[in-house]
Amino acid sequence: MDHNATTPVDTEVVNAMMPFLREIYGNPSSLHYFGQQSKKFLESARINTAKLFNLQTPKNIIFTSCGTESNNMAIKGAAFANKDTKNHIITTKTEHHAILEPCAYLTKYFGFKITYLPVDGYGLVNPDDVKKAITPKTVLISIMHANNETGVIQPLQEISGIAKEYGVLFHTDAVQTAGKIPIDINKLGVDLLSISGHKIYAPKGIGALYLRTDSKSIVSAKQSKIEDIIYTTKKTKMHQLIHGGSHESGRRAGTENVPYIVGLGKACEIAAKNMAKENERLLKLRNKLEQGIKATIPKANINGHPDKRLSNTSNISFEGIESEGLLFLLDKEGFAVSAGSACTSGKQESSHVLAAMGIPPITAQGTIRVSLGHQNTEQDIDDLLHILPKTVAKLRSISPLWNK
Amino acid sequence: MDHNATTPVDTEVVNAMMPFLREIYGNPSSLHYFGQQSKKFLESARINTAKLFNLQTPKNIIFTSCGTESNNMAIKGAAFANKDTKNHIITTKTEHHAILEPCAYLTKYFGFKITYLPVDGYGLVNPDDVKKAITPKTVLISIMHANNETGVIQPLQEISGIAKEYGVLFHTDAVQTAGKIPIDINKLGVDLLSISGHKIYAPKGIGALYLRTDSKSIVSAKQSKIEDIIYTTKKTKMHQLIHGGSHESGRRAGTENVPYIVGLGKACEIAAKNMAKENERLLKLRNKLEQGIKATIPKANINGHPDKRLSNTSNISFEGIESEGLLFLLDKEGFAVSAGSACTSGKQESSHVLAAMGIPPITAQGTIRVSLGHQNTEQDIDDLLHILPKTVAKLRSISPLWNK
Repeated sequence: MDHNATTPVDTEVVNAMMPFLREIYGNPSSLHYFGQQSKKFLESARINTAKLFNLQTPKNIIFTSCGTESNNMAIKGAAFANKDTKNHIITTKTEHHAILEPCAYLTKYFGFKITYLPVDGYGLVNPDDVKKAITPKTVLISIMHANNETGVIQPLQEISGIAKEYGVLFHTDAVQTAGKIPIDINKLGVDLLSISGHKIYAPKGIGALYLRTDSKSIVSAKQSKIEDIIYTTKKTKMHQLIHGGSHESGRRAGTENVPYIVGLGKACEIAAKNMAKENERLLKLRNKLEQGIKATIPKANINGHPDKRLSNTSNISFEGIESEGLLFLLDKEGFAVSAGSACTSGKQESSHVLAAMGIPPITAQGTIRVSLGHQNTEQDIDDLLHILPKTVAKLRSISPLWNK
Repeated sequence: MDHNATTPVDTEVVNAMMPFLREIYGNPSSLHYFGQQSKKFLESARINTAKLFNLQTPKNIIFTSCGTESNNMAIKGAAFANKDTKNHIITTKTEHHAILEPCAYLTKYFGFKITYLPVDGYGLVNPDDVKKAITPKTVLISIMHANNETGVIQPLQEISGIAKEYGVLFHTDAVQTAGKIPIDINKLGVDLLSISGHKIYAPKGIGALYLRTDSKSIVSAKQSKIEDIIYTTKKTKMHQLIHGGSHESGRRAGTENVPYIVGLGKACEIAAKNMAKENERLLKLRNKLEQGIKATIPKANINGHPDKRLSNTSNISFEGIESEGLLFLLDKEGFAVSAGSACTSGKQESSHVLAAMGIPPITAQGTIRVSLGHQNTEQDIDDLLHILPKTVAKLRSISPLWNK
C-alpha cells in the first residue's frame, strides 16, 4: 500500500525487457547490425511513451535515468542556459525534494531567486498567485502535477495559460500522475514534463523528460560541435544536464538503457490501456478505506482536496499519535504504508507538504500515506480496516499527546 | 568484436538481477520491510563493486546511471564547487567525449580554462606536461585510464603523485579498464574514478563514481539541509550533479536502480575472479590477429603503444581506404567492428584520438577498432583473418586514395 513510493515491475514489462538483457544487446549508437537492431526498439519505445501523453512527436521524449534526473535537467537546464539574463524561478512549497533541492542549489551557488508559492488548506496553488509572482527575470515555472504525499492535483491548465501569456517556460513534475490519470500534454500546455518508470510498474532507474521543441532545432543541435543548447518553440534556451556523446539527439549523453527504455514503453502502453478501469477500481477501494476509517476512528482526518486528488492516494492524520509507531506496528502485520515521501524517510522531519497546507505539527506528526495499486484488493482494505482502529487506539492509550 | 562499445549481459549477472525485477521490489529508502530488504542487497552490491578496486571503503562508491554521468559528476562537481576561487582543468586531447564535452561546456558558459595535453605517437601523456600545466587556479586533472579507441594505458600512478604534490583533485575515466586490468584505487592514487556497467557484462544504464572521502564528512552531508557539498580528504569541495532526496548518502539523488546495481556488483565479482585468465586468452587472440594482418595486408599499421595497451584492443589503419566501406562489408559478413567510439558514430568526423597521435587524416580515415571479449574465439580470429585481406584489397582496387 505504498505505490507512490514504488511499484513492482509488471510481469509483461519484465517479459518485454528480457530479450534486451539476453540476446539483443547492441549499443544503439553502433552502426553495425547489432547496434541498429537495438536502435529500432529504442525508437519504438519512444513512440509508446509518447502515446501515453497523446503526443504525435515522439522525438520530444528524452529518456533519462529517473524522475529526479528529469527534474534536475528541466530546472538547471533552463536556469543555466538563461543565467546571464534571467535569475528567477517560481515553484510551490509542496514540491518534491527533486524540485526543491535543485532550486535551493541554484540559489545558494548561482544567485537564483526562487518564489515558493503557498497552497490553500486543500493543498492547491492559486493560479493568480502564479501570475503575480512573474517578473521579467522569471525563466521557469515548475509546479507538480499531483502531490506525492496527498495526491492533490494542481490546476496546470490554468497555469499554463498564464505561462504562455508571459512567455515563461512551464515545467511539471508528473511523476505521480503519468499513467494514473489521462494526460494530453498539448492540452495541458506545459513545455517540460518529468516522468518516472518505477511509479508505473516499470523498473527503478528509468525516467523521461518531455521537452517541447521544434524539429529544426533538434537537428541543428545534433550537428553542432558542442551540443548544449536546445531551443524550445519559444526560443527559450535549455542546457543539457549530462554532456558527452550525441545520444538522445544530443540532449542527454550516455549509452541508452535499452532494456529499461523498452520496459518503460511497455509500461506506458499498459497504463494507457488499463487506466480508466483501474482508476475506478482504486477509487472504490480508497473510498471504502476512508469511509471505514472515519466511521471507526475518532479524530482521524483525510488531508487534501476531496475530489481534485489521485484516486489511489489517502493521506490520513490521526491525532494524538506519532506515525513512526503506527508504521512500525503495521509493518509487523505486513502492511507497507509510509509517513510521506520515501526519499526523505529516516530524516525525522515533519512533512513540508502538510505544513504548507496549514496542518499543525501536532496533527501532521500522526499522519500516514496509503497509496494503492495493482496488487491491492478489497480484502487488503478490509484487513487494514480490521487492524487500524485497534492499533491507533493502542498507540493513543500510551501516548502523552492523546487527550484521554 | 566491438566489446569496447558494449558487451552482452553475462548470464550470471542476469540471473542475479532477476529477483529484483520480480519479487524484491521495495524502494531502498522506505522504512518498511520491503524497503529494507532492497537496501540490504544494494549495500552488498556496493561491497562487491568496491572489492574489484581493492577498496576497504564501499561507501566511497556512488552508483550512477552510466559512465558518462560519473564523468559529468566528477568534472562539473569539482568545477562548480570551486568556481569562485579556481577555474582551470587539465585533461588530454584523447579523452572520450564524456570528458571533452563537459569541459567544453564549462569553458563556453562558466569561463573555465581547459588545458588539453598532447600525447606522443603512442598515445601516451607525458607526466612532466601535467606538472607544467598546473597553476594555482587548477581545480582538477582528468586523464583517462585506457583509451577507448586504441586501448593505450596512461601512466596514472606517476600523474597521481604530481596531483598529490600540488593538492589538485585527480579524476580518471576508467570505463575501459575496470574489470579488464587489475586496479587498486589506493595505489593508483586517484581521488575520483568513473566506471560503466555495460563495458563489463552488466547492463547499459548503470555506472559508478569512486569518490575519496572521509567518513565524517559524508555523515555531515547527509544531515545537512542542502546536501550539495561533499568534502574530500583534501578538503576540496565537490557538488552533486543530481539534487533531490538523500539517496547515496546525499551524493546522488534518485531512487536507486536496485536490479542493475545488484547486476553491477555481480559483474565486478565475476571480473575480479576471471580477469587474469581472460586477459591472457584475449592477448593471445589479439596477437594472432595483429600478426596475421601484418603478414597478409600491406600498408596496415597497428596504432598505439605495443605493450602499454589493453589486451583486447586493436586499432588498425589500412592505407588507401575509408573505414566506412570496410565496416559495411564486414557487417554484411557478420563481423561487428567499429571505426572508433560508438558514441559519436554517424558523425563522419575523423578520430580526434588518432589526430592527437599525429596520424595523418589520410591514414586515420582507413582505421578500424577490433575490441575482443568473452564471446570471441580463436575461430573468430581465423574467420576475420580469412576475410579481411580480400576485403581490404577489394576496397583498395576501387579506391582513388590507393596508389596502385
